[in-house]
Amino acid sequence: MNEKVKPKTLPGFMELLPNEQILFNKMKETIQKTYEKYGFLPLDTPIIEDAKVLLAKAGGETEKQIYRFEKGDNDLALRFDLTVPLAKYVTEYYDKLSFPFKRYQIGKVYRGEKPQRGRYREFYQCDVDIIGDGKLSIINEAEIPGVIYDTFKNLGFDDFTICVNNRKILNGLFNSLELENESAEILRIIDKIDKIGVEEVEKELLKNIDSKKVKTILEFIAIQGNNAEKIKALENLNLDNEMFKEGVEELKSLSKFIKIFGVPEENFKIDLTIARGLDYYTGTVYETFLNKYRSLGSICSGGRYDNLAGYYTDRKMPGVGISIGLSRLFFQLIDNNIISADEQAVSDVLVISMTDNYEMCAKVATILRENNLNVGINIEDQKIGKKFKYADNLKVKYVVIIGEDEIKNDVVTLKNMVTGEQQTIKLEEAIKLIK
Amino acid sequence: MNEKVKPKTLPGFMELLPNEQILFNKMKETIQKTYEKYGFLPLDTPIIEDAKVLLAKAGGETEKQIYRFEKGDNDLALRFDLTVPLAKYVTEYYDKLSFPFKRYQIGKVYRGEKPQRGRYREFYQCDVDIIGDGKLSIINEAEIPGVIYDTFKNLGFDDFTICVNNRKILNGLFNSLELENESAEILRIIDKIDKIGVEEVEKELLKNIDSKKVKTILEFIAIQGNNAEKIKALENLNLDNEMFKEGVEELKSLSKFIKIFGVPEENFKIDLTIARGLDYYTGTVYETFLNKYRSLGSICSGGRYDNLAGYYTDRKMPGVGISIGLSRLFFQLIDNNIISADEQAVSDVLVISMTDNYEMCAKVATILRENNLNVGINIEDQKIGKKFKYADNLKVKYVVIIGEDEIKNDVVTLKNMVTGEQQTIKLEEAIKLIK
Repeated sequence: MNEKVKPKTLPGFMELLPNEQILFNKMKETIQKTYEKYGFLPLDTPIIEDAKVLLAKAGGETEKQIYRFEKGDNDLALRFDLTVPLAKYVTEYYDKLSFPFKRYQIGKVYRGEKPQRGRYREFYQCDVDIIGDGKLSIINEAEIPGVIYDTFKNLGFDDFTICVNNRKILNGLFNSLELENESAEILRIIDKIDKIGVEEVEKELLKNIDSKKVKTILEFIAIQGNNAEKIKALENLNLDNEMFKEGVEELKSLSKFIKIFGVPEENFKIDLTIARGLDYYTGTVYETFLNKYRSLGSICSGGRYDNLAGYYTDRKMPGVGISIGLSRLFFQLIDNNIISADEQAVSDVLVISMTDNYEMCAKVATILRENNLNVGINIEDQKIGKKFKYADNLKVKYVVIIGEDEIKNDVVTLKNMVTGEQQTIKLEEAIKLIK
Repeated sequence: MNEKVKPKTLPGFMELLPNEQILFNKMKETIQKTYEKYGFLPLDTPIIEDAKVLLAKAGGETEKQIYRFEKGDNDLALRFDLTVPLAKYVTEYYDKLSFPFKRYQIGKVYRGEKPQRGRYREFYQCDVDIIGDGKLSIINEAEIPGVIYDTFKNLGFDDFTICVNNRKILNGLFNSLELENESAEILRIIDKIDKIGVEEVEKELLKNIDSKKVKTILEFIAIQGNNAEKIKALENLNLDNEMFKEGVEELKSLSKFIKIFGVPEENFKIDLTIARGLDYYTGTVYETFLNKYRSLGSICSGGRYDNLAGYYTDRKMPGVGISIGLSRLFFQLIDNNIISADEQAVSDVLVISMTDNYEMCAKVATILRENNLNVGINIEDQKIGKKFKYADNLKVKYVVIIGEDEIKNDVVTLKNMVTGEQQTIKLEEAIKLIK
């Protein structure tokens, strides 16, 4: 067989080198362990689902991106998020679950987008959701920023802000102004404020909205200050709208409990311009930003919704959740030199042989492993320089060298690959030094 | 929207309840950590590949089972094992890898088999492989049983046997008898020996093979005794065939090193009838059995191969590896009551409120989490009985109860859900007791 197929990974599919993969997996594990600390149960739904089930709710742009295909008589599709599978799961297994049902899921999802730098067709989402049966306390909405805070702290970040808003405030504002139908357009214009400034925003709003209403909108988006001051200012707007008032009350209660759930004031901010998924979220919404890298966009988002599984059941299941798009986040962090995978290693030690007597190498590796170390071994017929190059590439901190003298004297030579220091000692001493 | 879609997971796709998922994930993590202890690097290749690349080697039964589909102009397929993606990976990134390249991969693979009990269309494989560049020392073949042994020990098993053979022995035997072309058929007959007995096997062999050759075959499969005795008996056959002799030498060297790599004599057995994947393996082959549940079949198999990536490159890359089919294994272990997921919990503690003053609940949960405990919280507007039922369902060992008295006196009531014991104490004391 001489004709070879060229091995090539598809564009838009992330495939990492081992050192990158080590770092990626560490981040994934940190997220998982933090989610578990908050009592979320693991879930692992299939990647392939019945297209009819998966697309019950989809439409428009999403549907075009779906990987959908037939196998035998089955119309199949790959999941494009972890929320629809969750809706399916809680409906299908309703009788076997306890509510509030807290679950996390970390897994790959698929969207056939046009591949661009840092945009993937296969990517990891890391989701938590709390699902109520009929109702769900607002306290859950305050626990979620606790999860976000802990997660990014554990990932090694300090300088980030969890921005919070409540959809009822925006909806109430627009209702009270009788601008429900224009809300999407207004939010789109407001969103440009950083770029074009207040005056331009005012000008654009005035094209279709009367000046009194525009004044109220501008008052609203002009609200500044710390979280307490913002809530005060919202109350001072004296808007006579039940939904608005409810939103402000919820935001107030949220602000109080977020602190109790351990999020410091400096990592949490009320941002009245955050809207997110207009059709889906109904209460609190979250976005999270790295303060020094605001341009990355939100790195963790979500919110409260009132009806998770309306396409599958009449049962009302409100919920609150967030998602981290880990593949994209990882790419961005590497790309902006915020993290580096250069020194990542799986092994603590590499055992290498200087002779073709390999018994002591195998014995030493086994004893090191029994001492809970991750241990590689190179007993190949290679020149010693090549073996040290191998150790370098694996980024191991220590190399244990077994040559004729070591075998004769029942000792090992331990080399610290960072300092270059080298000493010939008993194995037990080497273990102590490595640990 | 009143017309509902019935949410239904596809047949042949494993979807677990949370307690089962917890146990499954623990097993997966144990396997991962053990693989890392042996210095294997993580890999996570895409689930979707170019069909041309993925099917370069496939054919026959495999090809029929593939999930293959088009998206835009692309002919795509879902991976059906982790070996082909590994072959692709080492060829594609050859210049960036260090050899011997040791990698593990734990991920889902897809085969559109007829769904049957315990057979899945989407299932996890947990693979390790060591890939050489041109050559690869036999010592690596002895390290693999070390990995198998440690993995199943760490999974909580004691009574299992790693069975080892060497394909060169079988091939050498058949070559020396000029029965190369009949080898598959002979192995098929030999395989029935447990069911039909030696005499019937002899009768079947004699149909197409002359009696002198059958005598040698029967002598070969009659070889009994401990590992050392079997090797001795192989040598005593005095077969004048280079390949056979090489196989015996390798088996001898393997047996010696397996012990040094920490596998006790009772967990390791030479089994001269093991053949496995006739076209693929070229040296040592492995199968692993739970001694009390031999009927489950091999729970971890693999072997040595000489040419990993022949369809992609002229570069010779020999390797050795094993695979655990975790989804199927998990199903079998549960199904045979060998393991149970009944008592699996994510949370160590559940905090529940007896009042509608939730501040102390949130504070206590936060402090417990700061003490590295996994903590759930139930502050829903539910009756207290329902909250304890919730705790029961979650299988938490401890419940922390916050009522009016606890708030007033700044204490907590800790209930041990196993013993039913309950005491009202300071939070710090509760933390000590829980830990």
